[in-house]
Amino acid sequence: MKFNIALLAGDGIGPEVIDQAVKVSDAVAKKFGHEITWQPALTGAAAIDAVGEPYPDETHEVCKNADAVLFGAIGHPKFDNDPSAKVRPEQGLLKMRKALGLFANVRPTFTFPSLLDKSPLKQERIEGTDLVFLRELTGGIYFGEKGRRDGGETAFDNCVYTRAEVQRLAKKGFELAMTRSKKLCCVDKANVLETSRLWRETVQAMEKDYPEVEVSYEFVDAVAMRLVQWPNSYDVLITENLFGDILTDEASVISGSMGLMPSASMGADIALFEPIHGSYPQATGLNIANPMATVLSAAMMFETAFNLPEEGKAIRDAVNSALAKGIVTEDLADSGKSYGTTEVGDWLAANI
Amino acid sequence: MKFNIALLAGDGIGPEVIDQAVKVSDAVAKKFGHEITWQPALTGAAAIDAVGEPYPDETHEVCKNADAVLFGAIGHPKFDNDPSAKVRPEQGLLKMRKALGLFANVRPTFTFPSLLDKSPLKQERIEGTDLVFLRELTGGIYFGEKGRRDGGETAFDNCVYTRAEVQRLAKKGFELAMTRSKKLCCVDKANVLETSRLWRETVQAMEKDYPEVEVSYEFVDAVAMRLVQWPNSYDVLITENLFGDILTDEASVISGSMGLMPSASMGADIALFEPIHGSYPQATGLNIANPMATVLSAAMMFETAFNLPEEGKAIRDAVNSALAKGIVTEDLADSGKSYGTTEVGDWLAANI
Ligand SMILES: CC(C)[C@H](C(=O)O)[C@@H](O)C(=O)O
Ligand SMILES: CC(C)[C@H](C(=O)O)[C@@H](O)C(=O)O
Repeated sequence: MKFNIALLAGDGIGPEVIDQAVKVSDAVAKKFGHEITWQPALTGAAAIDAVGEPYPDETHEVCKNADAVLFGAIGHPKFDNDPSAKVRPEQGLLKMRKALGLFANVRPTFTFPSLLDKSPLKQERIEGTDLVFLRELTGGIYFGEKGRRDGGETAFDNCVYTRAEVQRLAKKGFELAMTRSKKLCCVDKANVLETSRLWRETVQAMEKDYPEVEVSYEFVDAVAMRLVQWPNSYDVLITENLFGDILTDEASVISGSMGLMPSASMGADIALFEPIHGSYPQATGLNIANPMATVLSAAMMFETAFNLPEEGKAIRDAVNSALAKGIVTEDLADSGKSYGTTEVGDWLAANI
Repeated sequence: MKFNIALLAGDGIGPEVIDQAVKVSDAVAKKFGHEITWQPALTGAAAIDAVGEPYPDETHEVCKNADAVLFGAIGHPKFDNDPSAKVRPEQGLLKMRKALGLFANVRPTFTFPSLLDKSPLKQERIEGTDLVFLRELTGGIYFGEKGRRDGGETAFDNCVYTRAEVQRLAKKGFELAMTRSKKLCCVDKANVLETSRLWRETVQAMEKDYPEVEVSYEFVDAVAMRLVQWPNSYDVLITENLFGDILTDEASVISGSMGLMPSASMGADIALFEPIHGSYPQATGLNIANPMATVLSAAMMFETAFNLPEEGKAIRDAVNSALAKGIVTEDLADSGKSYGTTEVGDWLAANI
């Protein structure tokens, strides 16, 4: 098959880790007889520097016409101390999500047995954890009307959801639950928020279409607790944009494998794949960043966007052997030998 | 001194744990020569059953005229499956917070050395944790306009903050930081929300009035991670209502001592003290609920509302000896002997 993949390296360590994912994907393509055309495009601070905005129209054109988007990371410290700056890398991210209609952010949290000791949690709490958050990504308080009144003394942000938006996300949740252990948790704050009550009643009404799925409803504050206490009690969780932002990040640190966690953001027409870690500015150019999360995002791309599970498995197997053999960057090396970003990438590509 | 304390036992285990706090407070009053008049009043499901609403006017009158409010817990499973029920116990809680102007929720998270092994976190991660959240409690998305449009198909919740609301809460944060290690973290989502930008700029403008306090600004998603990774890196944290709801609950489970965590909700004229745990319906009437969080809430009441640190310390000392001697309820008893709720209360009162 032929694939046209938009390549958004972004800022900080983004370009370095993306390079490794490209190498590994090319090795997969070679082995399985596919042809990949990579279409690099600007985003984030890199795009602001080059053309004055973080998600330029040309980048959008490239993404729209691609079969998938592979994304590195964005964000640069020079924007950090001024959250009200007119142009910020994060705005590009939000604009891109909206423009590409990426309404479902898929964030798995799973454990690698060899990395359990990296977790801040006790081993018996974390063992067997394998959960997936589906976070709604193009609605809610992120995209509602916001502004100031009273000469700047009052600020407001509006959180809005329509039943159709909830259904679209929840449908993906039910479908995913059907492929896993058939347990779905709807996370909301229905004891306080009207949008949450709409979420809950919408999901409740969909239960009859998936009679095999066991659905639970939990408040966001309770989930924030139980994720730390019993992460392995969860399977598929669906939630709105802001709750998802907070809870997926919380979930990401429990496994001890945060540097390895991939993610997907899916729309009706296109999907984007990216590591969950940030642009890690301090590590930029040092050849120390762990490329595995980006490489595993490429695995998700083969599996999810191209429906090629064997290709995805080839990548996952290579990552597992690298972990087993200690072909890892310094963040995972403990006191043992560590390898550079490019060396890990080369090894993975050679072992596909 | 003479104190008039409103006593809101509430639902579930509320009455049982409140009884112990009353016993212990009475013992303190006796020892230090104070006189307490307890003013019981209805709230929660108990109030709905009795008079049809969760925070009746008579209860408000009692609270308004009291020197402090001691609160148990509210919530009853019969309301849980219908979040859109017209009358719910939680509404009483929100109404009470607003009516009494309890704008600052103070939520300490600290560790008891003897309980470190109860934490889901590894000991080296949790050791030395001693942080306090100040959560804004009467504003934000909890109290903004909310409703439906388009025949119920669209729901909205408005999050609103004024500069004055932020200043009022932040002032308490700076003051608290001055009495502790002079570190203050402002938790927001200023890269996305206008209300967060107002929070951040308001706190930034107050920094000059507290030159000794070192202020940091972190995004809510980053804090959700670091709370699990390095809880002992935090000291005083200030945040808005919804973020505070999620993060304080997350923080409560890291110490392993959740059943012991007290809280205060402070207004301009009155303050309310309550354990952070809920009404734990399954345990109701079994004499197994741990009363220590409520007893420690009474300690906070003496210290904060009445400015009587020695009285507070007498209670804390009694709790510490009970823990050391194993005079604990079954949740803390491991395989050892456990005591009933009333026995623990009796022991604490006898050891003041
Ligand atoms: C950078 C920020 C706008 C973004 C978000 O809040 O969605 C990030 O935290 C994420 O989760 O991808
Ligand atoms: C019961 C609920 C309305 C309440 C809140 O969200 O404030 C509770 O979670 C709390 O934190 O006191």
